[in-house]
Amino acid sequence: MGKERLAELRSQLDEINIEILELLSRRAELVQEIGELKKAKGTDRFDPIREKEMLDKLVAANPGPFDDNTVRHLFKQIFQASLGLMEEEKKVLLVSRKKRMEDTVVEVNGLRIGAGQPVIIAGPCSVETPEQMDTVAAGLQPHGIQLLRGGAYKPRTSPYDFQGLGKKGLELIRKTADKYGMSVISEIVSPSDIEMALDYVDVIQIGARNMQNFELLKEAGNVRKPVLLKRGLSATIEELLFAAEYIVSRGNDQVILCERGIRTYEKATRNTLDISAVPILKQESHLPVIVDITHSTGRKDIMFPIAKAALAVGADGLIVEVHPEPSVALSDAKQQMDLPQFEKFMEGLRTSGYLPKENLIPVK
Amino acid sequence: MGKERLAELRSQLDEINIEILELLSRRAELVQEIGELKKAKGTDRFDPIREKEMLDKLVAANPGPFDDNTVRHLFKQIFQASLGLMEEEKKVLLVSRKKRMEDTVVEVNGLRIGAGQPVIIAGPCSVETPEQMDTVAAGLQPHGIQLLRGGAYKPRTSPYDFQGLGKKGLELIRKTADKYGMSVISEIVSPSDIEMALDYVDVIQIGARNMQNFELLKEAGNVRKPVLLKRGLSATIEELLFAAEYIVSRGNDQVILCERGIRTYEKATRNTLDISAVPILKQESHLPVIVDITHSTGRKDIMFPIAKAALAVGADGLIVEVHPEPSVALSDAKQQMDLPQFEKFMEGLRTSGYLPKENLIPVK
Amino acid sequence: MGKERLAELRSQLDEINIEILELLSRRAELVQEIGELKKAKGTDRFDPIREKEMLDKLVAANPGPFDDNTVRHLFKQIFQASLGLMEEEKKVLLVSRKKRMEDTVVEVNGLRIGAGQPVIIAGPCSVETPEQMDTVAAGLQPHGIQLLRGGAYKPRTSPYDFQGLGKKGLELIRKTADKYGMSVISEIVSPSDIEMALDYVDVIQIGARNMQNFELLKEAGNVRKPVLLKRGLSATIEELLFAAEYIVSRGNDQVILCERGIRTYEKATRNTLDISAVPILKQESHLPVIVDITHSTGRKDIMFPIAKAALAVGADGLIVEVHPEPSVALSDAKQQMDLPQFEKFMEGLRTSGYLPKENLIPVK
Amino acid sequence: MGKERLAELRSQLDEINIEILELLSRRAELVQEIGELKKAKGTDRFDPIREKEMLDKLVAANPGPFDDNTVRHLFKQIFQASLGLMEEEKKVLLVSRKKRMEDTVVEVNGLRIGAGQPVIIAGPCSVETPEQMDTVAAGLQPHGIQLLRGGAYKPRTSPYDFQGLGKKGLELIRKTADKYGMSVISEIVSPSDIEMALDYVDVIQIGARNMQNFELLKEAGNVRKPVLLKRGLSATIEELLFAAEYIVSRGNDQVILCERGIRTYEKATRNTLDISAVPILKQESHLPVIVDITHSTGRKDIMFPIAKAALAVGADGLIVEVHPEPSVALSDAKQQMDLPQFEKFMEGLRTSGYLPKENLIPVK
Repeated sequence: MGKERLAELRSQLDEINIEILELLSRRAELVQEIGELKKAKGTDRFDPIREKEMLDKLVAANPGPFDDNTVRHLFKQIFQASLGLMEEEKKVLLVSRKKRMEDTVVEVNGLRIGAGQPVIIAGPCSVETPEQMDTVAAGLQPHGIQLLRGGAYKPRTSPYDFQGLGKKGLELIRKTADKYGMSVISEIVSPSDIEMALDYVDVIQIGARNMQNFELLKEAGNVRKPVLLKRGLSATIEELLFAAEYIVSRGNDQVILCERGIRTYEKATRNTLDISAVPILKQESHLPVIVDITHSTGRKDIMFPIAKAALAVGADGLIVEVHPEPSVALSDAKQQMDLPQFEKFMEGLRTSGYLPKENLIPVK
Repeated sequence: MGKERLAELRSQLDEINIEILELLSRRAELVQEIGELKKAKGTDRFDPIREKEMLDKLVAANPGPFDDNTVRHLFKQIFQASLGLMEEEKKVLLVSRKKRMEDTVVEVNGLRIGAGQPVIIAGPCSVETPEQMDTVAAGLQPHGIQLLRGGAYKPRTSPYDFQGLGKKGLELIRKTADKYGMSVISEIVSPSDIEMALDYVDVIQIGARNMQNFELLKEAGNVRKPVLLKRGLSATIEELLFAAEYIVSRGNDQVILCERGIRTYEKATRNTLDISAVPILKQESHLPVIVDITHSTGRKDIMFPIAKAALAVGADGLIVEVHPEPSVALSDAKQQMDLPQFEKFMEGLRTSGYLPKENLIPVK
Repeated sequence: MGKERLAELRSQLDEINIEILELLSRRAELVQEIGELKKAKGTDRFDPIREKEMLDKLVAANPGPFDDNTVRHLFKQIFQASLGLMEEEKKVLLVSRKKRMEDTVVEVNGLRIGAGQPVIIAGPCSVETPEQMDTVAAGLQPHGIQLLRGGAYKPRTSPYDFQGLGKKGLELIRKTADKYGMSVISEIVSPSDIEMALDYVDVIQIGARNMQNFELLKEAGNVRKPVLLKRGLSATIEELLFAAEYIVSRGNDQVILCERGIRTYEKATRNTLDISAVPILKQESHLPVIVDITHSTGRKDIMFPIAKAALAVGADGLIVEVHPEPSVALSDAKQQMDLPQFEKFMEGLRTSGYLPKENLIPVK
Repeated sequence: MGKERLAELRSQLDEINIEILELLSRRAELVQEIGELKKAKGTDRFDPIREKEMLDKLVAANPGPFDDNTVRHLFKQIFQASLGLMEEEKKVLLVSRKKRMEDTVVEVNGLRIGAGQPVIIAGPCSVETPEQMDTVAAGLQPHGIQLLRGGAYKPRTSPYDFQGLGKKGLELIRKTADKYGMSVISEIVSPSDIEMALDYVDVIQIGARNMQNFELLKEAGNVRKPVLLKRGLSATIEELLFAAEYIVSRGNDQVILCERGIRTYEKATRNTLDISAVPILKQESHLPVIVDITHSTGRKDIMFPIAKAALAVGADGLIVEVHPEPSVALSDAKQQMDLPQFEKFMEGLRTSGYLPKENLIPVK
């Protein structure tokens, strides 16, 4: 008998479900119409006062058995879903896969980032001297490195630490790169420097500490140069995507995302490389994603396995710091590879199949 | 004209809202009846297969404009709210304010914890020697300290570190406490030691590393002795309450919660004292809440201001480690106060009004 | 016999200790002389190549029983200590207590921050409308609030969220503050806006996301207006002090530090208020320290106990967000108090002795 | 002239360095002799009181230019280095590479973990019914899975959540594994259950919440069964090694380490997989290391790239949760793969070369 009654109740439940769905759908259509009207008038569609009014009426009419808070909760969900309908175009970020299914390929003087073949970005932490830059570029070029990195503006925790050579550093890295037929990536830290930097760099790097320096992001969005955007020290994946959106929504869609480790309690590594961020970013966004294996780990001794992991997980490239003489480097001495170490590193990636053999042939 | 139409649409929206509410309420009543039937039959009320069936039917019938995922989301919310109705009794934790409005007062040989007057628990990190214990108890007693702490079982990161005196340590602290008319609180780490410990301790301490040692929690729930439960190194506030529920649901409602700092990236302190946890715990639970100011900070030099903050925020008491000669202590040497420091500390709390003056008069 | 031999060995150890000390001292004097010579020549005193040379020689001469790494480690410590001698002036930060024993008092139109009496900074999250600002200022003024806050430039995660009224917002808050005899604190996010902002604000706020926006810090260091510097989302206490040093080293010593919660795994609060940071900052620095109780907790319901804790721990003031109608606020709706709540909050602080009674008398 | 003087000073510095080294070496020999004497007497070699005495003497004799704190610091380093000498045998953990250069291979009924070929451990989160276990084992076996996982004792946050079938669950998984020629791995949570479990499991799993349940570790160390030890939710790499040392130091050297994600602020994944931990653990320890890709990410949708990353970085195996019908699972419904997903997953690993093709041939 209980079994029959149960079947009966269930069938009633199914009916009532459908009735609710129909009402919700009719409601949604009303909301769409209201949205159109508001749009015509230029009013903001979200109206918290009106929402409060509706909730108050509902609570006043609540016959039970739900308590008032549950009623409030359920209708907030319903309101939100309707609002979602209205703002559909707005909500989908330009950087998201929903907006664009195909992968964005960022092109830097013929080098295609995000097109399937992983790209290795290499160079010293800081641009220091012409000799240093020449030595390192001469050492990198035979390995097919086309993007030379080197910091001219160094955001340093202490005002008394080496702050980089500034514009002189940019000139120096540009000159070196030109000599060896390479492109330049270098960090810019001030919105007012973006314009000037266009003469020297091929990719503007925005560092972890500046991921939410929105004025800088906006300026980078205003130019037409590729931007490499590093994830902030404790930024969420979602916040990184929003930061990229600041750039792309200004019209610059040549953005490369960079996972570079997050700050956690673990001290065995400089930061904790959040390897899962790579496939999540690739899934949620069409932008290329690369991994800075130097800053995320801060340890030369695990650079090779970490590089393999980053490429295996689907990263479109790596950043590695290479210095002719790491022990005397002006910054980040402990984590930079020297040239023989880099050679072994590249060879390892090639022979284990993580990089194609052709890289051996110099580009130019 | 647009204005009139808007008003009209809004009034329709209000009506449809009420209709939806009525249907939801009728639906909820059906679910309640189904719940009663299931209860009678002893079936579990949550039935994921049936839920999936209903969602499939709804999606099949979805007329738009909501997309199918939104329909799924909204109805899951509705199902959940209905389920909430059914399982109402179950969901409210025994440790929560909703279950019990009045503060729980834990009584330890006449000392009332959670009754308004803050309680200071003091003693060395580890029980080491009879002399050490005697010296410290003799020094604490004149300040009105009624609860003597001291570890006999020390959970230590390395198997080669001092692991405590074990049962001998319990005997020793008991003897000392008896001599000075004090009660004993000491950590127990093994479920099988709980019974034995009843002869020696007045409050069973469960340490941070064991907050989710559920077997230990269950054993502690089976006895009738007050339990001080420390928050885990990276436990959420909610997880702490659930851990307490393990004890209380077994029948032992004499539980004291203890905030002792959480693990974060900041290294200036041993842990990061989550001071906000105290008012949140007090709000969500009726159990007394105390703050371990020694382990949360690991710094003697800020112990006094932190003690004031903990009492100001509403803690029912403090734990402080005091050792006759901290520099030679077998564990936690750097963070334990010596007796003169403790005297100054207590005097400071009294003269600034955080502790009552009467504490000056020894208990016995 | 063992005992005698032990005593003998110990006495030899004492002698050898003193000999080592004498050599270390002579060594240090040599290093000082070398430093002077280098200074005269304008050479950098730290010379990693020379250091490596010395270490190589030592390792080559190592007779054991220490292994080479231990020798390296010990001598690096010795080198560093000697270097410390040379760079003594440089190493002590301007913001540190070692540099200046007395508390820095920041003066804002007669209001003295850091002078003993806690200061309450209040106002809405964002400047929205003239009515909103007027209502809130009218409500705050009778409680003795002299510093009105309100965001004109809002750093927002999404480019599509309300970004503040910009310069118009500054004009608006200035006008409101003038009417009620209050001073203005507002966040500036772009280095190029600092100059302009001087006409509108009495205290420049640098937000958490910009704590390591070094260009902004430098600009703020170049002007002569008080700066309130918020701790970054995952900045260490040390990094906050270095960020302040960027400002002070440029000549602007009117800096207020602000603890506003750090990012952790705990989600019961918006951030985790690191209450221990307050006494540590007060100990290590002479700058005033205030606590933003709104952003650190994100919960109105615990604002009162948290305010008491912050004042008890030694903060020089609080920031609280107050909005005439929080539920319709354009940002941070859930965490802002309304005016009646704020009145109760202030009354609570006064009657419990955390704020002086005199505050009741309006300033003008 | 300055140049000559500099050369002279430097040569003096070199001489003095060597003199200091000689004294340090003589000192170290003395300390070794003292250590021998103490050992003979059974006294603890570290003697903080004696250390304090020596430091006091040194400070009293300090001729400058070092300040007293620097003297204290330098000599503490020297003392520590000497102590390091004395305790050499003690300090090197049994689990460390320094103790044993060759990789430990854990053997489970012929399956060799840590011997080069990666091992896939699979099965449902919880053992639920005979049908469920049979279906899953039948689905796993053709893919060469030799180690069947399934929880019988489930440590759950809430006491009201499904706690596992207990001993019945162990019986069930044993029976299923026997039918399909597989071995069993299952979590044990209570020290008193270890003995009993030997009859049912081939590998004892110790879960993340119990990584520092030292009583459980000790019991696991007392038996002669392989143990899989999961890293705690917020345990450091070092703490994981010490936890393993608890087991190995009791005589059970068949320990497998497991990285399973750490708790961070990022909520896109259930935990943050600390991929760098794998090569660090492999480097510092000789024990095999596997990665639980299910719990670390909590996301089925990134399981495949994460598996590749884990194998690329050098893990000796993976744990994946597979359930015949994840949507109705009693625990962890969202993160378990179903059998077709698992098939695709395995095929992907094989065709991309992360697993050998031979796995296709069933074991028995």
